[in-house]
Amino acid sequence: MDLFAVRWVDPDRVDGPAVRLLDQTGLPVTARVVDCRDVATLAEAIRSLRVRGAPALGVAGAWGVVLGALVGTASATAGHADAIAEFLAAQRPTAVNLGWAARMVAAAGPDVAAMTAVAAAIERDNKAACVAMGRHGAALFDDGVRLLTHCNTGMLACQGIGTAFGVARTLWEDGALAHLWVDETRPLLQGARLTAYEADALGMPHTVIADAAAGSLLAAGDVDGIVVGADRIAANGDTANKVGTYPLAVLAARHDVPFYVVAPTPTIDHATPDGGGIEIELRDADEVRSFPGVGVITPAGSLAHNPAFDVTPAELITGIVTERGVARPPYAETLATLR
Amino acid sequence: MDLFAVRWVDPDRVDGPAVRLLDQTGLPVTARVVDCRDVATLAEAIRSLRVRGAPALGVAGAWGVVLGALVGTASATAGHADAIAEFLAAQRPTAVNLGWAARMVAAAGPDVAAMTAVAAAIERDNKAACVAMGRHGAALFDDGVRLLTHCNTGMLACQGIGTAFGVARTLWEDGALAHLWVDETRPLLQGARLTAYEADALGMPHTVIADAAAGSLLAAGDVDGIVVGADRIAANGDTANKVGTYPLAVLAARHDVPFYVVAPTPTIDHATPDGGGIEIELRDADEVRSFPGVGVITPAGSLAHNPAFDVTPAELITGIVTERGVARPPYAETLATLR
Repeated sequence: MDLFAVRWVDPDRVDGPAVRLLDQTGLPVTARVVDCRDVATLAEAIRSLRVRGAPALGVAGAWGVVLGALVGTASATAGHADAIAEFLAAQRPTAVNLGWAARMVAAAGPDVAAMTAVAAAIERDNKAACVAMGRHGAALFDDGVRLLTHCNTGMLACQGIGTAFGVARTLWEDGALAHLWVDETRPLLQGARLTAYEADALGMPHTVIADAAAGSLLAAGDVDGIVVGADRIAANGDTANKVGTYPLAVLAARHDVPFYVVAPTPTIDHATPDGGGIEIELRDADEVRSFPGVGVITPAGSLAHNPAFDVTPAELITGIVTERGVARPPYAETLATLR
Repeated sequence: MDLFAVRWVDPDRVDGPAVRLLDQTGLPVTARVVDCRDVATLAEAIRSLRVRGAPALGVAGAWGVVLGALVGTASATAGHADAIAEFLAAQRPTAVNLGWAARMVAAAGPDVAAMTAVAAAIERDNKAACVAMGRHGAALFDDGVRLLTHCNTGMLACQGIGTAFGVARTLWEDGALAHLWVDETRPLLQGARLTAYEADALGMPHTVIADAAAGSLLAAGDVDGIVVGADRIAANGDTANKVGTYPLAVLAARHDVPFYVVAPTPTIDHATPDGGGIEIELRDADEVRSFPGVGVITPAGSLAHNPAFDVTPAELITGIVTERGVARPPYAETLATLR
């Protein structure tokens, strides 16, 4: 299986340019490849999580702006590159990388060759950043470490080897990972479906658990460290990540287990002073009211509440692993040096 | 909607006696009523979880022995009442209430009127205990309270109004419940399927959340109290309950939200000094790895770990609500008075 999240299809191909995605909504059962040939199709794919994960969204957004410049249409998404960048950014407002990358490419316009070069650089830098995060993160743990992770932060999320998952993968390739506990990550099961898919493909020893079972694993002493990604990190270190991250951080603190956030420096939002300023995306209640592939599981009269993210306060975070090294508290000072 | 778990159908009815069940395996989509007219049919229903929940199983077992005495057959389930009680108890060997209630009724035999009186008393006492727990628990909260609960602890589990859910229901009937947050409770979704069904049937304002979303609700100040049931309470107050209870207790402590266990006094195991002595049932990994109607949701190479319960240390429990009142720390002393 060719493992990737986003791939640019050159405009000199027979069918013209496309942003190619491995549609993650069908994994691990169906590995379907989708070629987005216009911005509206890519926007739908971003909104419906066919591609997800902050760094992969950055790469998708970058190539999306190039795509829009090449195939401009009469729709509301047409117009100059800046408008396309804003349109794509609006599909997942919490994902800061998406808007950042799209705007970076737009700023290089209107010359398509210049925009293409910027998008390619974003993708290349992204892969290199993953490798660097993997090395910095792996250095934090001893041989035989048993890690726990949440959601999916591997190649499917990053295009590179990943952020938190990249740390586990690097440890595994070094022979130092004893086990990876994988939170299933309801409601969309990115852990059970995607992280387990990557771990299985790589032959990493791993075990899936219900999110609610992490507490007893920590209490039993079966976890040596927790590694998670980030969707947005405020200037003081408060971190927005997939819902369920905050409870893990609280449990880790109670059991003196190190809790690391792993994310590239563009995830740091220096303009937002703390977590109180991070807007949390509320997603469709039907993601909770249904189970992938089964349909509705709750009564028709039941409401559901579906925040996509939660905010982990900086005080619960042992360190923030970036491609430029590991930031330690006080984050207001250490993160500022990573501008 | 007529809400019940188990109901005795009198032998003077046209079709003869039956143990009537609301088949919980189809809820919340299909509310099918099953009349078990012989012991073998009831045994199958117990084995396949058409009726579940320790107190409800006790009521089902009690009436099952009466049924067997009335409609004795030539099958292996025939014979005197003691044999029927043992046969029913063997269908769910870990459900202590099932065997206890069935044997209580059998001991009153062979006179059917005496056995019927014992079964009716078990059901009546069970309902009265729920009402008492509901009143003691409701007195702990102010008007307009927003509660969060886990798993299913209502009428479907208890035949009475329930334990933790009974507290919420009593508050609702008093006009004092503003909202009930319902953890979906993976892997078997007893919250999303059963608690939501009861709340919907009663018209209680409720919202289902992924288990991992409780942390951000607490952080946002949207929860005034947490109420949970118990499978076993050690002499020092350490409480085994559905997996995911312990993380809720840790979060409640962090946010100064009261955390109450609601359970009848037979749940207190005075012979077990603390939670370290409570054996945790590991259930089939396929409950995490798959879902009915979908099949496997994880890759074929992925393992899963599925502890049914976790243990919440007594220090995190604000109070233990029983039918005889609310025990407060130090539990080693206060629970001993409930012997």
